[in-house]
Amino acid sequence: MKSWFEYNWQVRDQWFDEYRLLATEELVKERTGGVGTILRTFFHIVDVELSWIRAIDGLEDWEPRFEDYPTLDSVKDLSDACRKQVTDILSKADADKVYTEVQVSWHPEPLIYGEVLRHVIAHEIHHIGQLSIWAKELGIQQVSANYIDRGLGRQMLQEKTRLRIF
Amino acid sequence: MKSWFEYNWQVRDQWFDEYRLLATEELVKERTGGVGTILRTFFHIVDVELSWIRAIDGLEDWEPRFEDYPTLDSVKDLSDACRKQVTDILSKADADKVYTEVQVSWHPEPLIYGEVLRHVIAHEIHHIGQLSIWAKELGIQQVSANYIDRGLGRQMLQEKTRLRIF
Repeated sequence: MKSWFEYNWQVRDQWFDEYRLLATEELVKERTGGVGTILRTFFHIVDVELSWIRAIDGLEDWEPRFEDYPTLDSVKDLSDACRKQVTDILSKADADKVYTEVQVSWHPEPLIYGEVLRHVIAHEIHHIGQLSIWAKELGIQQVSANYIDRGLGRQMLQEKTRLRIF
Repeated sequence: MKSWFEYNWQVRDQWFDEYRLLATEELVKERTGGVGTILRTFFHIVDVELSWIRAIDGLEDWEPRFEDYPTLDSVKDLSDACRKQVTDILSKADADKVYTEVQVSWHPEPLIYGEVLRHVIAHEIHHIGQLSIWAKELGIQQVSANYIDRGLGRQMLQEKTRLRIF
């Protein structure tokens, strides 16, 4: 599971680098689709990932306020801080935990731990696809969505014998 | 791994249903980003999935020609046919096969079988994110990108003890 997160984090950081080249006014401009603006899309990806991971670990919800992160650099800092939390939480989880039932406050039925991890992974890839359309419209460089050629196959092999999710 | 494919296939079919409501002229209109048109995006998702799965199974490349699939219904038929092939191929693969090395003609270095499966999965989610932006711009109904609430957690539990990839 770790290499899926590594994939998303590599791609996310590459998109931070590309979108950093645009003025903040462009990043906060309202757009059709997605969650409305480029800045909010980055924030949403980070926020949703941490909320779910904290929730399935039984931690209270920690809700950053979008208003507190008005620039891409501030959202990048938030992303780095949240990634550290996610890594800490998932590093403590035994591999078998993916098959356990979890209950989060905002969903009526119980879910499976690994189902939530996949939900978070798919959620980010989906929104990155949206960022790629806007990037093309704005004429900035595309980031590859490829999973291959990122060293993740080798990492998968190492994960095979690990007893932890991360 | 099967439930990841199930996720993509459920979402893909739901998008086929939504985009079916548009005229073909809209589907073949050139757009900025992605692979250029909505119809070509659907075709590309289907084509790429089958090409990779055939290649890592050692089968010769089978390259459908985009020109032969001028309508969404024809691409949907192609999608159904390819899905059957993918299911047949992956159903024969032992679970441990995900850790084996594979070599495909269009990539210089060997890859890991499971790395390619993930590449294919991420590839589709990425392009679906693009379709979702265009859908919003065209005013058609959004399809949920959620992995949860699709019965896939229960399916994950069943896969736990299976000795096959599918």
